[in-house]
Amino acid sequence: MSNKQQNILIIGAGLCGSLLALRLGQRGYNVNVYEMRPDLRRTDISAGRSINLAFSDRGNKAMKLVGIEDQVKDLCIPMNGRMLHDKEGNTFLSNYSGRDYEYINSISRQELNSLLLDEAEKHENVKIHFNKKCKSVNFEKTTALFQDYQTKAEFIEDSDCIIATDGAGSALRKSYFLEKKFLFSFSQQWLSHGYKELSILPNADGSYKTYKNALHIWPRGDFMVIALPNLDGSFTVTLFLSYDEGEYNFNNLTTPEIVTEFFKKEFPDALELMPNLIKDFFENPTAPLGTVKCSPWHYKGNTLLMGDSAHAIVPFYGQGMNASFEDVVEFDAILDKHEGHWETVFSEYDKVRKKDTDAIADLAIDNFHEMKDHVGQAIFQEKRKIEMALEKAFPEDYSSKYSLVTFNEDIGYREAMLRGRAQDKAILNMLADGEVSTEFILSGDEGLDMTYKEVLKDILDKVKTETEAILEDDKIAGLH
Amino acid sequence: MSNKQQNILIIGAGLCGSLLALRLGQRGYNVNVYEMRPDLRRTDISAGRSINLAFSDRGNKAMKLVGIEDQVKDLCIPMNGRMLHDKEGNTFLSNYSGRDYEYINSISRQELNSLLLDEAEKHENVKIHFNKKCKSVNFEKTTALFQDYQTKAEFIEDSDCIIATDGAGSALRKSYFLEKKFLFSFSQQWLSHGYKELSILPNADGSYKTYKNALHIWPRGDFMVIALPNLDGSFTVTLFLSYDEGEYNFNNLTTPEIVTEFFKKEFPDALELMPNLIKDFFENPTAPLGTVKCSPWHYKGNTLLMGDSAHAIVPFYGQGMNASFEDVVEFDAILDKHEGHWETVFSEYDKVRKKDTDAIADLAIDNFHEMKDHVGQAIFQEKRKIEMALEKAFPEDYSSKYSLVTFNEDIGYREAMLRGRAQDKAILNMLADGEVSTEFILSGDEGLDMTYKEVLKDILDKVKTETEAILEDDKIAGLH
Repeated sequence: MSNKQQNILIIGAGLCGSLLALRLGQRGYNVNVYEMRPDLRRTDISAGRSINLAFSDRGNKAMKLVGIEDQVKDLCIPMNGRMLHDKEGNTFLSNYSGRDYEYINSISRQELNSLLLDEAEKHENVKIHFNKKCKSVNFEKTTALFQDYQTKAEFIEDSDCIIATDGAGSALRKSYFLEKKFLFSFSQQWLSHGYKELSILPNADGSYKTYKNALHIWPRGDFMVIALPNLDGSFTVTLFLSYDEGEYNFNNLTTPEIVTEFFKKEFPDALELMPNLIKDFFENPTAPLGTVKCSPWHYKGNTLLMGDSAHAIVPFYGQGMNASFEDVVEFDAILDKHEGHWETVFSEYDKVRKKDTDAIADLAIDNFHEMKDHVGQAIFQEKRKIEMALEKAFPEDYSSKYSLVTFNEDIGYREAMLRGRAQDKAILNMLADGEVSTEFILSGDEGLDMTYKEVLKDILDKVKTETEAILEDDKIAGLH
Repeated sequence: MSNKQQNILIIGAGLCGSLLALRLGQRGYNVNVYEMRPDLRRTDISAGRSINLAFSDRGNKAMKLVGIEDQVKDLCIPMNGRMLHDKEGNTFLSNYSGRDYEYINSISRQELNSLLLDEAEKHENVKIHFNKKCKSVNFEKTTALFQDYQTKAEFIEDSDCIIATDGAGSALRKSYFLEKKFLFSFSQQWLSHGYKELSILPNADGSYKTYKNALHIWPRGDFMVIALPNLDGSFTVTLFLSYDEGEYNFNNLTTPEIVTEFFKKEFPDALELMPNLIKDFFENPTAPLGTVKCSPWHYKGNTLLMGDSAHAIVPFYGQGMNASFEDVVEFDAILDKHEGHWETVFSEYDKVRKKDTDAIADLAIDNFHEMKDHVGQAIFQEKRKIEMALEKAFPEDYSSKYSLVTFNEDIGYREAMLRGRAQDKAILNMLADGEVSTEFILSGDEGLDMTYKEVLKDILDKVKTETEAILEDDKIAGLH
């Protein structure tokens, strides 16, 4: 096909950009990728900013597409559930799903990104240029202005089309916004909380200091600490805390003494695992948590935003990378239909994809509030108990909102959000009204006899009926 | 009080800025207002941009506060309802409320603004400077940079605090956004539709060419024309139309022939009243419709955004000016509590007010979609019929969403939105389920005997019960 000779310029060789380069390389395009940072395969990436990530089914769908599922599996540490830590140091494991085969994974950003870059560079039609920062994009001429990090020389690159996968601070998005040549809707929303990365180092023999196969959470109402395992026996720890509210906040945690006091009071068992706390705390930056949405993503058939540049989200659903990988899968499917017609491809991608990335952005913020406000409430714990029992007893017939979002890659985020929220509302209201209860629900396998299953089947039917009624009521009211 | 000697700089002498200047003048502050445009009392304001506005109870509350309610009343033309025009030229009057004393008013922007400027300037501690454009604000130093329109000379003004009422394109908001000195959440959302102002001129004898006391609407599904009366016998007409979608749109209405064809086909009765259509259409600009939200509005006790600069909304609820006037009322009430402590005043105002202006922004967009999509649907017309009957029969016990938003100035927009949406959902679903019907509902006074009232009372009780249930279900589910 003649259009396979076309030149595509990708801005940014992060997770989304390098996957896109690989896929477009596989499709035969001439691909040039410009990345502002040095090659992360040859240098340490800057510490303190999301060293590891949650990798799940939507991300894996993209790995299957480019044929590297097995290689990625070797980098994964399965996390079957949340390990909750209370103030007394008691722990409680809460599975992500009632189905044993559904779990998420901890994966190293650097290792996954390196694999994708290696695979992309195997294609001689893909070239990756490091230390070249994009300063602006002329979306009418389809050219981009770059600056070389070392020489400071500026140069312009021309291309048949430009796809910007340059993250939350995207140069292309900035050009769309500042040039005012078309009506560009844009929003950036900051949470009141920031985050800071810390670490739990391995034991001297390289073993893990706490349970390996879980995402650890120390929930404390208005703030929390989480920890994800790394392959080297360490955990990457993240503190989420308000900048300026509450007794302890980032603005007043200014001395080693007060930081130690805070952790001793709130996270004593974590503090014991972190003799390196003070060093990490004062060396690593405090970063804000923001959501970016915008529209349109494309300008004619010239330029397109993809990944975080189009939809940066907060990390509370563990879906940021997975959403960006799914972008590439969706884009690839539209290329199958309209290859050769960039304006049609970009415009259809924009149309079908945006509703889903808007949904995961909203879900991620919901989860921030849920983890802050709801996690300690009995009614939410009862809901979770019912959902786990339903998923275990009727694996084909029920998926919680979390499962719909995380393990059901064949339905879009928006559908998962609407159905998941309606289910949550149905169960919470039936619990409040005494229409269902957790009295007969067991947590293990012991109770899977017929009577127990009948009790659960009755609950399942009620939940399904009520969920449908909620969705129908909203539809009649013209909501959604 | 010593703090009454304080200097307050207001940027922008539009409706909100001149009202604020008047109120702060009444309170004894030294007020300097800088406005980029010439004095609109001595020059024609530019045609084609919202010449008249809908004035209602929230706006009037502010007029009462500053003691000019009677003078404003003289500028008002009551509009008791919507006069709907179909394609065949048939008209149908739909009242805004079942209570005769609830109506909105058409008012001239220029006359109202002039009155506010005159009243403000009666205070010798208030000075208004025209033709001075604000270019940026140094919110850390509480200074603003201006440029004189005639001499082009730039100068800096210092003040104890600065309040920016400089509209949707606010210089202060731009400084907040671009300087990146704190986490500033910001969104601008454009509708797919733009608008263009047209006019229906008076008859030769100065009389109105169509019914005076209504807001005229020609709803056509994906686009519409509206008309509001002016005191001189003319109507200001606005066409709302997509930029690029549908058979006719702003991008393809490029010749007199096609514009005439469009109006002949879609608005034949309006076309007859507008021999001046072509001149208006090609002389007046096409303007976009946007919503702006941001947070925080204030920086310490130094600077504050108020009115459209903080919350620009689309015009479909007729609440833009009313919301900005209500800003001043809310601000004044907080000044009563915390006068002398600007940081407390600004921060509390931000906290209590933002939820309400967010709500009216969302309601205004809802109404755009409602007018486009719902207005022609039988079930929405039945709902309206029920609500009018309830308001008429039980004036103390029921208010529709429209009434809650427009005529109930003692409850906030957010409460009006939540209750109003729940009521709509309740009625629409009861209609869909056959639990209530419009069969026995009359439109006039004829049926107000006991049996009829009993039927209505039964409907009222059902609506109230169902509304409470909807609000409670949402609360349990952690929504809102």
